[in-house]
Parts: sequence; C-alpha cells; structure tokens
Amino acid sequence: MSVSTEDVERAAVRIAGHARRTPLLEAEPGLLLKLETVQHSGSFKARGGFNRALAAREAGDLPEAGLIAASGGNHGLAVAHVARALGLRAEIFVPTVSSPVKVAGLRALGAEVTQTGAIYAEAYEASVKRAAETGALEIHAYDQPDVVAGQGTVGLEVLEQSGGVDTVLVAAGGGGLVAGVTAALGGRARVVAVEPERIPTLNRALAAGGPVRVEVSGVGADALGASLIGRIAYDVTSAAGVESVLVPDEAIVEARHELWRSYRVAAEHAGAAALAALRCGAYTPAPGERVAVIVCGANTDPATLA
Amino acid sequence: MSVSTEDVERAAVRIAGHARRTPLLEAEPGLLLKLETVQHSGSFKARGGFNRALAAREAGDLPEAGLIAASGGNHGLAVAHVARALGLRAEIFVPTVSSPVKVAGLRALGAEVTQTGAIYAEAYEASVKRAAETGALEIHAYDQPDVVAGQGTVGLEVLEQSGGVDTVLVAAGGGGLVAGVTAALGGRARVVAVEPERIPTLNRALAAGGPVRVEVSGVGADALGASLIGRIAYDVTSAAGVESVLVPDEAIVEARHELWRSYRVAAEHAGAAALAALRCGAYTPAPGERVAVIVCGANTDPATLA
Repeated sequence: MSVSTEDVERAAVRIAGHARRTPLLEAEPGLLLKLETVQHSGSFKARGGFNRALAAREAGDLPEAGLIAASGGNHGLAVAHVARALGLRAEIFVPTVSSPVKVAGLRALGAEVTQTGAIYAEAYEASVKRAAETGALEIHAYDQPDVVAGQGTVGLEVLEQSGGVDTVLVAAGGGGLVAGVTAALGGRARVVAVEPERIPTLNRALAAGGPVRVEVSGVGADALGASLIGRIAYDVTSAAGVESVLVPDEAIVEARHELWRSYRVAAEHAGAAALAALRCGAYTPAPGERVAVIVCGANTDPATLA
Repeated sequence: MSVSTEDVERAAVRIAGHARRTPLLEAEPGLLLKLETVQHSGSFKARGGFNRALAAREAGDLPEAGLIAASGGNHGLAVAHVARALGLRAEIFVPTVSSPVKVAGLRALGAEVTQTGAIYAEAYEASVKRAAETGALEIHAYDQPDVVAGQGTVGLEVLEQSGGVDTVLVAAGGGGLVAGVTAALGGRARVVAVEPERIPTLNRALAAGGPVRVEVSGVGADALGASLIGRIAYDVTSAAGVESVLVPDEAIVEARHELWRSYRVAAEHAGAAALAALRCGAYTPAPGERVAVIVCGANTDPATLA
C-alpha cells in the first residue's frame, strides 16, 4: 500500500486548525528540532487521528458510534482528544495491565475505556470485534493510509519552516510517522528511521525483505513497542530507500536528559530516540548537512526529566 | 533613562547566533505563546547578558576579569552561560541562603560563586565592591540599557514571527523584559505588564509616579522578586502608557499547570504569570484581538509540573 505526497498535502489542508502547527527550533547551527511535544495530547498521533476522522466526515462516513481504537498510550490519548474536539464518542480498548494513571487519563478526555486482554494484541482484537458490532470508525495506531498521511504533515511543516533540510531523523515503531514523513518529503530530503536496538521492527524488515516479528523491550517500548512494522510503513519506506539506524537505550536516556537540560523540552524516551542517533554516532551528518530531528512525544512523568 | 526601538534592533543583530530565536506557538486562535522557555539557561535573561557582554567586546571594553553579577536565580544562570559561551570568566554573588542546588547549578556552568550576605541586597553590594577591585564587567539583572535592549529582542521576534499582534502580555519583576519589549514594539502593539498581586512593583510605581519599594512574597518571588522596579523600566513603560495588571498566586499556579497539561511546556511560576492574566480575567481581550503571551522562564523543578 502506498501514501503519496499529495495524500499528505490533502491531509495538511484537512487538519489545519485542528492539529497544531508545532514549532521548529534552530537548536544549533545545522540542527533543527521539530517540537511535536506541544501537539494536542502530547504527541504527533493527533494528526493521524484528525485526518482519519475528518476524511470520514468529508465522505459522510462518520458513524454515530464515533471512534474506536486500541491503545493505552499515545494513540489512545490522541483518539480520545480527536473525538472530544470533534464532538464524537470514543471507545478505547486497553489491556488489563494498563496502569490506572493511563486509564484515568483516557477517561479524563471523555473516552469510554474497556480493559480487556492480557496483552495489547488481545485488546486490539476486542476493539475490532466491538467496531464490527457498533459500526464505530476504527482508527489504527499506524497501518491505515489516512493515519499515515496525517502523521506525514509533520514532514511538510519541517520543509516549510526550515526552507529546506538535507535529512530528517524520525523514530520508528509501527512506522506511521516515518512512512508519513517519507511520503511528505517525496525525495526532497533524506529520511533516516531511528529505532531502539531492542525494537528493530523496520531494521529487520528491511533486511528480510518484508515485515518480521521482533522481540520488544527497553525504554522505548511504551511508545515504539510494535512487534511488527506496519505494511504501509514497510512499503513506503522500502520503496523510498529509507535507511534504519539503531540506537542503544543508554543513548536514548541521555538524549532525553539533554533535551531537558539544554532546551527545557519534555520528551518521552521515544521522543528522544531520533536525537540519540546523532549523539551516539548512529547517524553522522556530513559537514554542513542540515538535519531536522523530530521530537515526537512528551507523554512522560516530568519528575524523571532532570 | 531610555531605550529605543533602534537600540533593540541593534541588540538583535548583536546577539544573533548567540541567543536562540525561540518559537512562537499558535496555541489557539488569537493566542500566541512565545516559548522563551527553550532559551539558553532556561529564561530570556541570556539575551540581555549576551547583549551587554557583546556590546562591551565591540567597544573593546571587555575586561580580563570577565563578567560579574549578583543573582541566585535566572540572571545568575544566564550570566554564567554567557561567560562560558564567550570564553570569559564569571563571578556570581549569591546570598548565603541560596540553595545548594542553585549554587551547584552555577558552578556546573563554570562560574565562580561567592556566597555572602543574608539577603540579595547584601550580595549585590558585595558584587559591586568586587567589580570595583577586579574591573569585571557588571551585568545588572535589569537596570542597564544594554540589558534592557537585549531582553527587548523577544518583542522584535514576536512581531516578526506573528506578522503582527494587537497585544503582548509580559510578566514584570525588576522590569527589564517589559521595558525591552515596550521599546522593541515602539507602539506597534499594546504592552500589558503582568505582576503577581504580592509583588506589585510596577503597578505601585505607576500609581505613585515613580519607583516605590514593595513587600515581596508568593509563588513568583524567586524570579519576579525585585522589591523596586528598575529606573529604566519605570521610565520606558510609564512614557509608553503601559498598563500593569495584577494576578493572584492561584491563577499563576493554575496557568503553569495548564502550560504543562495542554502544551507540555515547562514553565516556572513567573513564566506562567502572563498567561494567568488571560485566564483569571485580569486582562480580557476584545473579540478578535490577537494576543501574544511571553512564557519567559522554565527554571523549575519538573517534578512539580503535573
């Protein structure tokens, strides 16, 4: 499956005024930080959620049952936010192990939360079954064209705000963001996917010639913890020749502290992974290369920032 | 004493590439947040420090003894940062009551720290005496023209990044920032000074026709805790007809939590004071009025954000 630059451009028009246009900070010469941390619900995920819901509304396909998703993390928060902002119902399925804090956070956004299944995959299956019963619009965490196109609007903004960059570093989990940004850029800048060593979904898939299931662990697991790269993400990034680089957990932890220490930017571990690639040498820019780093999420306990 | 728009424009040229150009976030329709939280050393103070040190260097007046300042807070951190960035010595005087954490923070930036005097005024006097001995360049926390002009560059950026606003809300303590922004705007937008009810330095001065000493207490005291408005700040703001509005501590506390909850922006209490004025009704924009709020500092314990 594919997502085109035009798909992302249409998404940008659609979500304007709903998702925030987030700042691009010139952090040091040649290094730009895209502060998606200030996005609604604390991560880029609101973009894809708005795009899918608004595209359905445009098509007259928005069901009375509202939106449904499976996620105890950023995606769930985003779908809950999107539903509230658009005056829709939201049902969010989370595994029974989800922390009470996360469940409370979803409910505070007005979502109906169902805790079911020992692991994410079971909660997801339950959400699919429920959607079939109610007719609610399923919003997948990464593997739907409208979701990917919505996430890609981050990439368009980077181009517009920077006046052009050579390279964009993007963390990859299920791959919605990296696929969207790849589609957005359409070859106008290099995209480098950054993955924790302990969650190499895209890396292994590119080596194997297709999605392969990986073990998931480490500090990035809460937000980058897909065990399989999305089909769209694989197709879009492999077709575009996107490279994946791996970073150790310690580099992610240090990059997250740097974001706080040097910029007072609150980032979750996944949000600091892309910067970690620069700092640990997993990606080394050429002299004069202009690099944008997407700081993609801020849903973290602030007590652990300093 | 006066500071002109041209003084601020010269400061902007001088500090370009030294101070960060911070993002302006369109938070909601008509509300722009100037995220000075990501500035070097965590507050706008680095701008004034760079401008004063660089102006002295231009004039061939930068002494071998380096920079000297009195402050256990944002100003001290800023001067320490400026000195390190420019390869200069920094001596920072703080009262003996300063927390070990603050002293350690200054030392981590390479500053020599002298703890002396029971209160700030005594530390300040000691720094002036020391400067007379060593010849070091004193950088005042707010009451020097180059410092005020440097802080004013925030206002020029707001104009440039917004394409024009009606009103800028600025927290005031000693008044360096509000005076600089007033000079920067030169009547191109209204400036409203926001002060905690418990530190009404400018408010009382405007009512009395000149600086008057006030009692200092409350949540803003660590960063807005001047007991007397600066002479420059009084002259510049009174000449321009700047209004001061007062906000209760509870509104500041709530605005700070809102900045975290809605934008994942880390602000200290003083940094949230300007937003508090909008939220508690101390300043009510007209329909359609475009308002920029300067979120001026982030030096806070992140554990207290949520």
